[in-house]
Amino acid sequence: MIGFLGGTGPEGRGLAIRFALSGENTIIGSRDNSRADEIARKMCDQYGIDNIGSGNNLEVAEQAEILFITVPYSAQRELLASLRNVLKYKIVVNTTVPLGFHDGMPYILDIEDVSASVEAQILLPDSQVVSALQTVSARDLAKVEENMIGDVIVCSDSEDAKMEIMHKIDSIPDFRTLDGGRLANSRYVESITAMLLNLNSKYKTRSGIRITGI
Amino acid sequence: MIGFLGGTGPEGRGLAIRFALSGENTIIGSRDNSRADEIARKMCDQYGIDNIGSGNNLEVAEQAEILFITVPYSAQRELLASLRNVLKYKIVVNTTVPLGFHDGMPYILDIEDVSASVEAQILLPDSQVVSALQTVSARDLAKVEENMIGDVIVCSDSEDAKMEIMHKIDSIPDFRTLDGGRLANSRYVESITAMLLNLNSKYKTRSGIRITGI
Repeated sequence: MIGFLGGTGPEGRGLAIRFALSGENTIIGSRDNSRADEIARKMCDQYGIDNIGSGNNLEVAEQAEILFITVPYSAQRELLASLRNVLKYKIVVNTTVPLGFHDGMPYILDIEDVSASVEAQILLPDSQVVSALQTVSARDLAKVEENMIGDVIVCSDSEDAKMEIMHKIDSIPDFRTLDGGRLANSRYVESITAMLLNLNSKYKTRSGIRITGI
Repeated sequence: MIGFLGGTGPEGRGLAIRFALSGENTIIGSRDNSRADEIARKMCDQYGIDNIGSGNNLEVAEQAEILFITVPYSAQRELLASLRNVLKYKIVVNTTVPLGFHDGMPYILDIEDVSASVEAQILLPDSQVVSALQTVSARDLAKVEENMIGDVIVCSDSEDAKMEIMHKIDSIPDFRTLDGGRLANSRYVESITAMLLNLNSKYKTRSGIRITGI
């Protein structure tokens, strides 16, 4: 089962519905499980499916083997520290980007561990942290009737976990995953996200990235 | 005239020939002007053109109004410090990326000013520094018979200089420039380059970037 911690936000909802429609059993979590229950029920009703469950974040972390972190970066540390034991030996996929805003323009925060996903691995030393999907627009994810354009660069220090997550994400139509190497490289993908958000602001669009030559 | 400082390397040669073929007057510079002379003459002979001149880096910096820095990052500081006065009030386009290598894999060096182009602007306070073309493969540039695939993200704190350089680069067939915003954003483009080089190593290819949604 694939779980989404903080899964009631746009990123979590978008990923849950895309994975559910591709046939995966999913479960979305929130601090408040009544909110997760309501959103999961609505999504199942809307798409005529029954494979999106719900619970509070702790329940979701216990039940799923693969957990996506879909909270904003600012909530990452508290969430992961509180779930460290239950996430032991599980695959944790981090989608967060450490962003600040200056004059309305996004920039990468100067954080101690450089990358949000490296920080997640340090917070969860016994989990296999994989970074992915930072460059994908949450709003585009939620529009399941539209194709997703863009590549998903996946990084991890665990080759097995990386391959498993690449395979899962590739099962969603239109996604193409690329092996971005070790987890420290996730800082580059986080930077790409900051650039895309700047371009979005400049060009009034939702941009994405496509790697050419592969 | 468009000059290329350290223009006898693959990046400088590739850019000079593409600009020359698009009709610009160009001049390539080297520490050793006899080497620049020889390379410029060979390129002119090969393509039947006469608009690639040569000189040492100081002569090139004096004669051109727009200067491309096409040395490796490691040579940037010494080059720019030595040309600070002659580059005053000129547009300086930086293509460098602060790269190190670990186990054969490239990574972004932890430099004081975070971005190579921000560092260049600090070294040249009276020049208009623009960053561009970091993500473009030097080897692809040199193959003028092949199309260039990929976008060129251009950053600067001078809107006028940025627009002029975007216009110049757009005059080269196949290139598409995008306004990447302020010069500090060049750090994100430098990071994209590091990611592309990691992908090149993994996939045995020369990758590039295309921004979707624009």
